[in-house]
Amino acid sequence: MPILRIALAQTNPVVGDIDGNAEQILNAAERAQAAGVHLLAAGEMSLTGYPVEDLVLRQAFIDAGKRRVTRLAEELGERGCGDVAVVMGYVDSDGPTDPGPRSTHGPRNTLALLQHGEVKFTYFKHHLPNYGVFDEARYFVRGDELTVARIGGVDVAFVICEDMWQDGGPFPAAAQSGAGLIVSINASPYDRSKERTRQQLLARRAQETRAHIAYVNIVGGQDDLVFDGSSTVVDPQGKQVARGRRFVEDFLVTELDLPGPDGLDIANTADNAMTVRYVTLSSDQLPRPGTVAANDVVPELSDTGEIWEALRLGLADYATKNRFASVVLGLSGGIDSALVAALACDAVGAENVWAYAMPTQYSSQHSLDDAADLAKRCGLHFHEVQVQPVVDAFLSEMSLSGLALENLQARVRGTILMSLSNQHGHLVLATGNKSEYAVGYSTLYGDSAGGFAPIKDVPKTTVYELARWRNAQARARGEVEPIPENSIQKPPSAELRPDQLDSDSLPDYEVLDAILEAYIDRDQGRDELVAAGYPVDLVRTVTGLVDGAEYKRRQSAPGTKISAKSFGRDRRLPITNRFRGGLDGNV
Amino acid sequence: MPILRIALAQTNPVVGDIDGNAEQILNAAERAQAAGVHLLAAGEMSLTGYPVEDLVLRQAFIDAGKRRVTRLAEELGERGCGDVAVVMGYVDSDGPTDPGPRSTHGPRNTLALLQHGEVKFTYFKHHLPNYGVFDEARYFVRGDELTVARIGGVDVAFVICEDMWQDGGPFPAAAQSGAGLIVSINASPYDRSKERTRQQLLARRAQETRAHIAYVNIVGGQDDLVFDGSSTVVDPQGKQVARGRRFVEDFLVTELDLPGPDGLDIANTADNAMTVRYVTLSSDQLPRPGTVAANDVVPELSDTGEIWEALRLGLADYATKNRFASVVLGLSGGIDSALVAALACDAVGAENVWAYAMPTQYSSQHSLDDAADLAKRCGLHFHEVQVQPVVDAFLSEMSLSGLALENLQARVRGTILMSLSNQHGHLVLATGNKSEYAVGYSTLYGDSAGGFAPIKDVPKTTVYELARWRNAQARARGEVEPIPENSIQKPPSAELRPDQLDSDSLPDYEVLDAILEAYIDRDQGRDELVAAGYPVDLVRTVTGLVDGAEYKRRQSAPGTKISAKSFGRDRRLPITNRFRGGLDGNV
Repeated sequence: MPILRIALAQTNPVVGDIDGNAEQILNAAERAQAAGVHLLAAGEMSLTGYPVEDLVLRQAFIDAGKRRVTRLAEELGERGCGDVAVVMGYVDSDGPTDPGPRSTHGPRNTLALLQHGEVKFTYFKHHLPNYGVFDEARYFVRGDELTVARIGGVDVAFVICEDMWQDGGPFPAAAQSGAGLIVSINASPYDRSKERTRQQLLARRAQETRAHIAYVNIVGGQDDLVFDGSSTVVDPQGKQVARGRRFVEDFLVTELDLPGPDGLDIANTADNAMTVRYVTLSSDQLPRPGTVAANDVVPELSDTGEIWEALRLGLADYATKNRFASVVLGLSGGIDSALVAALACDAVGAENVWAYAMPTQYSSQHSLDDAADLAKRCGLHFHEVQVQPVVDAFLSEMSLSGLALENLQARVRGTILMSLSNQHGHLVLATGNKSEYAVGYSTLYGDSAGGFAPIKDVPKTTVYELARWRNAQARARGEVEPIPENSIQKPPSAELRPDQLDSDSLPDYEVLDAILEAYIDRDQGRDELVAAGYPVDLVRTVTGLVDGAEYKRRQSAPGTKISAKSFGRDRRLPITNRFRGGLDGNV
Repeated sequence: MPILRIALAQTNPVVGDIDGNAEQILNAAERAQAAGVHLLAAGEMSLTGYPVEDLVLRQAFIDAGKRRVTRLAEELGERGCGDVAVVMGYVDSDGPTDPGPRSTHGPRNTLALLQHGEVKFTYFKHHLPNYGVFDEARYFVRGDELTVARIGGVDVAFVICEDMWQDGGPFPAAAQSGAGLIVSINASPYDRSKERTRQQLLARRAQETRAHIAYVNIVGGQDDLVFDGSSTVVDPQGKQVARGRRFVEDFLVTELDLPGPDGLDIANTADNAMTVRYVTLSSDQLPRPGTVAANDVVPELSDTGEIWEALRLGLADYATKNRFASVVLGLSGGIDSALVAALACDAVGAENVWAYAMPTQYSSQHSLDDAADLAKRCGLHFHEVQVQPVVDAFLSEMSLSGLALENLQARVRGTILMSLSNQHGHLVLATGNKSEYAVGYSTLYGDSAGGFAPIKDVPKTTVYELARWRNAQARARGEVEPIPENSIQKPPSAELRPDQLDSDSLPDYEVLDAILEAYIDRDQGRDELVAAGYPVDLVRTVTGLVDGAEYKRRQSAPGTKISAKSFGRDRRLPITNRFRGGLDGNV
């Protein structure tokens, strides 16, 4: 029976940094060569980073990537890795997009196999995702040809990411081609429920195709996406043979006993949607190299631990990839800023975290004390700036009251943090959580100001969960708990007017988060929420706040444009400016 | 020869305001009934507004629209308009989207014909645009069936917007069906070069199909899009028979002599992509109603006048549709804020425009004088707020210098305007132009703060052109010129440090705008710019500023998310966070 020693390079590419990303692949290839590997796979777009978005519209960018692939093949040879078959991903094109929905040429989401100093073949992604965070129908033309390459006497098929998630196309074609191994390269972003689904699907596809599947994913934070790695090899029964770590770079080596060609003379058309092209790289069985330590299947993370790791990596990479050496945030003594401070210390190191208490006349002493306590526990830089004199200076020039006055205090704090950023080069972290942003319980250009909002997608109830989890981790390791118990226990308050509490304006967070999950994440309507048992007044209040907040957020992204000639490649604003009363009557 | 009297209702719908939009259609139907019209067409999505974006993901929204269409048909009958065949657009669905790129059911961009109290038939848009400002492949499933309805003995085919812009599909099918009239309903947004292309295409499609085409477009500002109307009827030679006004609501009536059915027994499949369904509403020729004044073809707007009207309508509708009765802006005496102030007076009336001079120690007396002069010329509300005492209060709490100090002044102004907005309910207008935003010559949360930036897509050179055009209009009408000649003549300055001029930091605007147009609008690379004759250092400087500004703008939209369960239906950030140095080496 032929064998293949395969390696999966779980790299962390940066969008646009073609040379840096190429170096990651070269390093992996040298490691693979040293480990006697026959076939090395890096992730989807591992050369260009993912998502490349409007860079695809720049021909100069596509050309630079294509040239780099040719050069990469040569360099692999020059560095003594020419025998390893190296698979990676980038943007290719076979001409500008032919306008129209049935384009047959244009930019392609591409896999290439490099060996012996040459590009042996390319494969163009067939299924292009165009939902949620994906826009691939906007940028790419799909391919309709599957490549099956004979490597060491094994038929190996090659696919890209979404090709596995949609039925039809490459996987049925691979099954009919008789491939013994399917290599799938991916840029598959994390979400909270995805890993189980992904592993189940991988097992099912292996069973359907009766082939081993080697699944490699990129890792790392890229803007608002976090890629979680978790590269996996499964056998034809769907059992995990090897699995990489999550949220860190990794390099997996596995040796597989694989079937030789099944001797069938398969027709060239395996599926209505796909043609199959056969390529022979090496027909003879490859010798079994010296022993290597096989990768274990790493243990699962807990549900809460997984979120922490995603947030930590997202923040760390946002800072690193944007070349910020340090971060700055406002520390109020409340739970949100406490959690972000602890997270920032894990992500960039306490010595690079600058926290400022910014009290006004409404700030309580216990807030200042709790902020100072956290600073000491975490070992971050902690200072105090007085806000009240600046607020008073504004008020001597203009008369403000009510919400305008509350917002002013938050905006003075936002301006202080942005000034510190401009003066010292820190990245400003906004500390708001998903629950309060969703209902508009925050101030534009105030507490929402900043370059990165690490917990903006974390509901308030999960903020508490994460705080307790992080403290428990510290206890288990015999370390100081980073987050003061006071910050976890006390009732949340914005402290922008006397004796203010969140509960004055909002329902209990347990209830609020459940309604937000239904209304925002699952797109349920008001009638459905009422039918689910929530009081009609509460449903009206919360959904009204959400719709109003969407509208308010628009004010931070001023917009009109003279259409197609869009400003600075800006796309449309994310949130539709709906008629404010319209949904009341209609939905 | 049969005749049809047709009317085109160029309405201004609001996204989500289904009842209000239905009322616009009902009003048009009553007008059509009174004018003896047989067939009335309103624009694409005239019931729901366009673009509906993520509202499509809410089943409750789709259901509300579908119910409203049924009810609208009944109401037309109740209001005595039941004999008029009324065509309009909305979102229908035949089930949730079947996942995958070849979906056969799901949400549809739909046209319905209503008559005699009923929905007679629906047509699902075939070509779904998914480029530039369009995302229809994300939201809709395409239809593959063309409906040809016999109305008054004339065969009429019905299509939607992009169906005309792409080759293949509905138009060839309509031609082969022998239709004498094609009704095209549209939501076609304005851009600077579009109208000529659109009219040429309309003429070509008429010639290709040897049919009259009745083209109706919506009008109005919706967020960052402006729909320009310009509804048009062309004859089979491509000649304009009638044409509506641009940038205003309009109602066109035209009577056409049309061919009867050509007697061919056409096979039911006219094109590979489409089937044709025939529907008979009325076979007999309709009587010629009493005389009405036919619409003229309205004269073209000048190139500059067209831009002014687009900006005016975009601002007016943004304010109205978001229920702002008044606007506020900072008035510096410079050309940008002067132009925005004059535009705002045209859009919402001088009595609803509040302008504030906000001098610091670096503001010159001539700036204040020019601001006061403009205020007097326009008749808007004008006040002064001192910025320096607030800046000094900040500086007594923290030490700032250089750019941080320049930005602080701009942020104090932004905070003042936002406070006025919170206190009095004004919409804040940001006054920056495209050239300075594109190169980052502005301050986050400072001069870029606001709910709407009317000239953010207008290059600086066009700002001057518009100012001169608007003054010339005033002279021609014997009115006071709104914009002081001083503001047009003096060298531009941010006045954030002593004797500062834009030309200290930026190339001449003529040169800058030409490079920006090539680099941003046409996606040219650096090599192409150098080949076009620009000095290599200048190209590096400007493209470096643009890339850096993209990066800086990110700081106003903090982001990370736990993937698919996205926050508040936020989509990805518009601008890719690219490796800052990466493009230097590669592109």
